[in-house]
Amino acid sequence: MRATTIHGAFDIRVTDVPDPEVLRPTDALVEVSATCVCGSDLWPYRGINEVRAGSRIGHEFVGIVRDVGSEVTTVQPGEFVIAPFAWGDNTCRVCRAGVNTSCENGGWWGARDRESLPVDGGQGQWVRVPLADGTLVSTPSVPDDTLLPDLLTLSDVMGTGWHCALGASVAAGDTVAVIGDGAVGLCAVLSAKLMGATTIIAMSRHTARQEIATEFGATHLVPERGADGIARVLEITEGLGVDAALECVGTDDAMQTAIAVARPGGRIGYVGVPHDIVLPMETMFGRNLRLGGGVAPVRQYIPALRDLVLAGEIHPGRVFDLTVPLEEIPEAYAAMDQRRAIKAMVLP
Amino acid sequence: MRATTIHGAFDIRVTDVPDPEVLRPTDALVEVSATCVCGSDLWPYRGINEVRAGSRIGHEFVGIVRDVGSEVTTVQPGEFVIAPFAWGDNTCRVCRAGVNTSCENGGWWGARDRESLPVDGGQGQWVRVPLADGTLVSTPSVPDDTLLPDLLTLSDVMGTGWHCALGASVAAGDTVAVIGDGAVGLCAVLSAKLMGATTIIAMSRHTARQEIATEFGATHLVPERGADGIARVLEITEGLGVDAALECVGTDDAMQTAIAVARPGGRIGYVGVPHDIVLPMETMFGRNLRLGGGVAPVRQYIPALRDLVLAGEIHPGRVFDLTVPLEEIPEAYAAMDQRRAIKAMVLP
Repeated sequence: MRATTIHGAFDIRVTDVPDPEVLRPTDALVEVSATCVCGSDLWPYRGINEVRAGSRIGHEFVGIVRDVGSEVTTVQPGEFVIAPFAWGDNTCRVCRAGVNTSCENGGWWGARDRESLPVDGGQGQWVRVPLADGTLVSTPSVPDDTLLPDLLTLSDVMGTGWHCALGASVAAGDTVAVIGDGAVGLCAVLSAKLMGATTIIAMSRHTARQEIATEFGATHLVPERGADGIARVLEITEGLGVDAALECVGTDDAMQTAIAVARPGGRIGYVGVPHDIVLPMETMFGRNLRLGGGVAPVRQYIPALRDLVLAGEIHPGRVFDLTVPLEEIPEAYAAMDQRRAIKAMVLP
Repeated sequence: MRATTIHGAFDIRVTDVPDPEVLRPTDALVEVSATCVCGSDLWPYRGINEVRAGSRIGHEFVGIVRDVGSEVTTVQPGEFVIAPFAWGDNTCRVCRAGVNTSCENGGWWGARDRESLPVDGGQGQWVRVPLADGTLVSTPSVPDDTLLPDLLTLSDVMGTGWHCALGASVAAGDTVAVIGDGAVGLCAVLSAKLMGATTIIAMSRHTARQEIATEFGATHLVPERGADGIARVLEITEGLGVDAALECVGTDDAMQTAIAVARPGGRIGYVGVPHDIVLPMETMFGRNLRLGGGVAPVRQYIPALRDLVLAGEIHPGRVFDLTVPLEEIPEAYAAMDQRRAIKAMVLP
């Protein structure tokens, strides 16, 4: 089959790799209907994270189950499934505590499992899914292709935006600022809206992203950054600051902005993979700021978000503004790297 | 009147200072019944925090109202009152959001107010209390002297321990570890117990403190520190870690222990004034650890905790194991500094 591999900075290829097979009785084989490129894929793409040349890449996909191992009971061939960006059993004590990304038996796409078996990346034609019962979430019937983008966001960005808002305990009536206008930031806007926030300030200076933010529920747009952006948010909140600040980037600048715009006692949600963030502990202590979030255990959010998508109540798939066939995935990476695209969907 | 002043490292004196008067219509004059020395007073005492020679010190006191300004309505002469460790209006939008320590019109004992009027420290015979209506909490009648220690803890340590447990959202059935066996740590044990935690691990190696921790609800005692202490907590929790870790010290060692003993998705409460803490953001992100706490807005907790004290349901005053007259307060500082005393009560 064909799958995406990364060979170095700015060197993404589509290559022939072995067809997957059911290797364990808990495996499922999924034929990928759609996959996509994640903002976090850009860290290795840009050479900021080290890569092993030839590694598989991609961790978001939806598709059709074509085969299952003898112990798989919750999904069956022919079903449409959504895969979260980490696989796991969903039954261990850590998963039961709601933290599937730390599953005691799980792991990551494109890496090796605990017994050194390679696990497929998501950006390919097929994926062998370990621990299929705990990993995959199916839909009641095979959905119309028009729903592919919305459902595909549940693999990562929509669940991650949701986790950010949950990490900040966004509640009805809250005033919220969202730092980051990538797909996750936009999904955080949508999540804050779903949780009842009444003032949602999206910090964004790109027209296309501002439009989606507004569509998702943003009541204010702040194009300024740094000190000017902070001043604008404080002005909007009459000098007080926001109840919840959602940090969806992972840089120190973004985190310092989140901290600066939070009111005393405010809650900061964070889901951007942290890169060189130094928290100002004295400030956080003095102002009673709370920090919650982390790598999103999206598996647990998929069923509820799937139902909202299938009911037509949310359209997180709006974050996809580029679609390419698998063979052109290098262009998807380049477009996202150059911010020509918010998020690119890839059709194998 | 006589009051405590600090003149440099290890130089605490009791000196003559001007008698306070009602200076503003919102002031009350309180004759101090009991005050005490705080673990945080030891930072300037040890020369770690800079001091201005001759500064007033102390921020915990209970006493009898002797005079009030014309605008004071909620307390009157003759009433027994508890003062929180920060004064404020309790009506501004920040106080209404529950963060009295960031009151838009408040301040600290022993410092100057926003118009540069000096504010008395708590370790003296009398205190002029600014914004008395928002600051003081009275009791229905003047309590028996035997209740003085319990009520005095509501000025700071009991409310601070409570804030730590709240910051970690301790809930019924939780497994909790408390790092720090000072008065705040012990009060955090008591708070976790009140909130329904069923396993409470007190990290303490001092017999006297272990005894109080057990009395307050600790189910396990871990005398080891560092890697050994962490290993013991993980052993007690069968390798998983605790739901909530309560950091009641403020050092980097204590915080790193709290982070290491928390389960994936665990909540860390922190109330120790942070000194050189560097948070391992990648670890916190990867394990979905939440951090909540800060300088405790104890004012809001006093009414409920006062009722528990008056009903005889809690005895946080057990943390006082030394009582000295005001003139001997240097010995109280020395005893706490040398860990000969957990917490010293001072009678003017």
